[in-house]
Amino acid sequence: MSVQEAKSERLESLPSKENFSEWYHEVIQQAEIMDIRYPVKGLYVWYPFGFRLRQLVYGKLREIMDRDHNEVYFPALIPETELEKEGEHIKGFENEVYWVTHGGLTPLDVKLALRPTSETAIYPMFKLWVRSHADLPLKVYQIVNTFRYETKHTRALIRLREITSFKEAHTVHATFEEAEKQVRTAIGYYKEFYDFLAIPYLIIRRPEWDKFPGAAYTVAFDTVMPDGRTMQIGTVHHLANNFARTFDITYETANGEHEFVHQTCYGISERCIAALISIHGDDLGLVLPFEASPVQIVIIPVLYKGREGEVLELCKRILGRVKGFGYRVILDDSDERPGAKYYKWELKGAAMRMEVGPREVAENTVVVSFRDERKKFKISMKELTKEKIEEWAAEMKERMRRAALNRMREKIRYFDSVTEVKKWAGRGVALVHLCSSTECGDTLEEEVGGSILGRFEEKPGWIDADVDGGCIVCGGKGYLNAIARTY
Amino acid sequence: MSVQEAKSERLESLPSKENFSEWYHEVIQQAEIMDIRYPVKGLYVWYPFGFRLRQLVYGKLREIMDRDHNEVYFPALIPETELEKEGEHIKGFENEVYWVTHGGLTPLDVKLALRPTSETAIYPMFKLWVRSHADLPLKVYQIVNTFRYETKHTRALIRLREITSFKEAHTVHATFEEAEKQVRTAIGYYKEFYDFLAIPYLIIRRPEWDKFPGAAYTVAFDTVMPDGRTMQIGTVHHLANNFARTFDITYETANGEHEFVHQTCYGISERCIAALISIHGDDLGLVLPFEASPVQIVIIPVLYKGREGEVLELCKRILGRVKGFGYRVILDDSDERPGAKYYKWELKGAAMRMEVGPREVAENTVVVSFRDERKKFKISMKELTKEKIEEWAAEMKERMRRAALNRMREKIRYFDSVTEVKKWAGRGVALVHLCSSTECGDTLEEEVGGSILGRFEEKPGWIDADVDGGCIVCGGKGYLNAIARTY
Repeated sequence: MSVQEAKSERLESLPSKENFSEWYHEVIQQAEIMDIRYPVKGLYVWYPFGFRLRQLVYGKLREIMDRDHNEVYFPALIPETELEKEGEHIKGFENEVYWVTHGGLTPLDVKLALRPTSETAIYPMFKLWVRSHADLPLKVYQIVNTFRYETKHTRALIRLREITSFKEAHTVHATFEEAEKQVRTAIGYYKEFYDFLAIPYLIIRRPEWDKFPGAAYTVAFDTVMPDGRTMQIGTVHHLANNFARTFDITYETANGEHEFVHQTCYGISERCIAALISIHGDDLGLVLPFEASPVQIVIIPVLYKGREGEVLELCKRILGRVKGFGYRVILDDSDERPGAKYYKWELKGAAMRMEVGPREVAENTVVVSFRDERKKFKISMKELTKEKIEEWAAEMKERMRRAALNRMREKIRYFDSVTEVKKWAGRGVALVHLCSSTECGDTLEEEVGGSILGRFEEKPGWIDADVDGGCIVCGGKGYLNAIARTY
Repeated sequence: MSVQEAKSERLESLPSKENFSEWYHEVIQQAEIMDIRYPVKGLYVWYPFGFRLRQLVYGKLREIMDRDHNEVYFPALIPETELEKEGEHIKGFENEVYWVTHGGLTPLDVKLALRPTSETAIYPMFKLWVRSHADLPLKVYQIVNTFRYETKHTRALIRLREITSFKEAHTVHATFEEAEKQVRTAIGYYKEFYDFLAIPYLIIRRPEWDKFPGAAYTVAFDTVMPDGRTMQIGTVHHLANNFARTFDITYETANGEHEFVHQTCYGISERCIAALISIHGDDLGLVLPFEASPVQIVIIPVLYKGREGEVLELCKRILGRVKGFGYRVILDDSDERPGAKYYKWELKGAAMRMEVGPREVAENTVVVSFRDERKKFKISMKELTKEKIEEWAAEMKERMRRAALNRMREKIRYFDSVTEVKKWAGRGVALVHLCSSTECGDTLEEEVGGSILGRFEEKPGWIDADVDGGCIVCGGKGYLNAIARTY
């Protein structure tokens, strides 16, 4: 693995993660995930190191999607005439669409939208692709750049004007029920993906007023960020036959009748990487699960005058062995002092560190530490096997998963009085019972200054509160809802 | 491997490849490379099958680039202020840039260009990334969508408004000479890539008036299409310090002085796939080298009543064995007749076909044929080894390479009279001796109706004509030049 990197800045120490917003801003730049200095607001550059992380994370997503979907690519430019066909849908996007109006100096006959999402690019083609029940189900996905004219505060990977890596899947089914089954399947895929990253999540059905424009309903994955705000990191939409009616997508049944299809779509953006960085990172920088680390193992020689040769020789033996296991490993034999190397590789989240000095050479041992624990221990060279490393990697992920889940649980509380929710506001997620009326919802949101995320699609076992209960506002029949400030 | 495909159209037979333009149009659609029915001129949809081909071809390109470059991603939107900094450069692109002028209903303060290529997005950041000689060389690449407002006749993969997969590399060096060395290296990479695809090429230095806007010089890879027109399928540019001066990219030398860097950039677009399809295809459809075939081997059962079970059993044994070798293989056990299956998989360029009927079951044999030759032969199951298949694949590629090179050579002729060149016009490449004056160049181009491609950067051994000779127009000191109609 090559370590050519853009050596742009001397390293400065990170702000404490308690100042989450500053910490995030700095870690993105200093760990060389993205360069935030591109001369347009809301647009960022993927550094080589960040790009490798992106490849690893999206590689996993591709692996999961490839089981059951075909990858495709639809154009980035959508004619105004198609984008505006679905009334609800365009209302949801019209204020944030970028419009291409000129080619060279020539005004275009039909304005072109830079895709904010691809329903209106894809579904006119689905009309051509789907003829009969034998063509169903149809399941495709693409990983593409999408665009939003964000006027709010922008932030790398979280709120951007070019989302460089939006994974969007689109499926077509004969019936509402089959589409609903696909919604369950998609939720399963997203669980697997976030479990792989050891990122805890809540699976919540959005309220009517907050569903995807044009959908029958929306199920979202939310995680809780270190500052207590939630971040939506994935959505699954049941589209019923709403888009099918607009785009006239029908199929011939076995009986020769023509029916509208039913559809789903579901997406994950590079917010998955924002979550990975934010949920696990610490004051020293990135903490990444072994499988997602661009540098899984870093070997650092601790050199003493006159003993350099033998130390480097053992380092190279370790390098050769670990490479042979198929891991991404670096021997950092640069001229920097060991302390500077520790600092650098902690910042970049190398999952495991192996150190070798003259003592290790004499004993034929190696000093090992894990990025999450930072405790050192020593093992003999004989013990350094692939099985051992896999065991460490699994233990590390389990520790990271538990720690992240515990931190999330601390930020989620049940309340039965609006006054208490107000006190909690800005610190995390409030669980409350709430009836279905928009009035009670509006009242609560205004009083406490957060957004209603919705009801649990799958209530986690560690949440004790009952699903049913009296509405916190009117006292009528209510259901367990989550409310929080959001990204 | 899943074979879910968009079954959009009943297959119709292809036009003969002699009508190249029609053949190309139809094969792209019928083989399900791209759907050409997207409702905007010059924009096309990658079908699942086409996308798999794209992944295989670009996978090879990535593998080559990854040896020596880091992959990155720069934004798709370039502010007008940056795009227009380099005077030559913007003149070369101003008529074909798409402009984003509005976000929602709001006019933007600074217009944003959809990248036609990324020099002006990347180089302002290189200014920040490069500080000292220790940061050099810097070598990055990205594979991105780029945009051109094409007003001419558009054609899938060849002349498009969204080039979905432009591989562009950008390198930074201390000196002109080091950049020149990188030009040689890049030419070497591109040779390797096109050799992998068995696509023959000419390596030609473009004349001054046709070089990349802002470059010191441009070396291009051209191939000759079946209709005799050439297609540029790759370019390598030496930028000298032209862009460095514009974007103020300097480095500190070992002596503490500040010098402008020297740069190169080089790119390959999805024209590489257009070439792959056009150069090797035949009247029946795609012909693809084994390593680039989405379906490398198709197994077709020839069923007779009462013998279906045993035939399918042998087919599955073959499937299991060949899958075990790691190949992309499909057992087509659909209800269609064998003839229809042959037709389908010939169209899609499955490199090898294996057929099994009751006779093969009795003999424990399998009938094999290759897509390029279409001669059938029989081997025993024992002979069906990984080594055998690799040998076949290598032989097939060598046959394809030779056949394609021979076809190209037939379309390249040397001439020493303008009258003869005129007769040849539209049939292929004319080689002529030409002096360096633009007058003689203009005269020749006007007389014969083609474009001067330039002088050979590397003259192939099979071209007999001398490098030096009297100018075909004025009789003065001339050099061997190629002239042709171009895509």
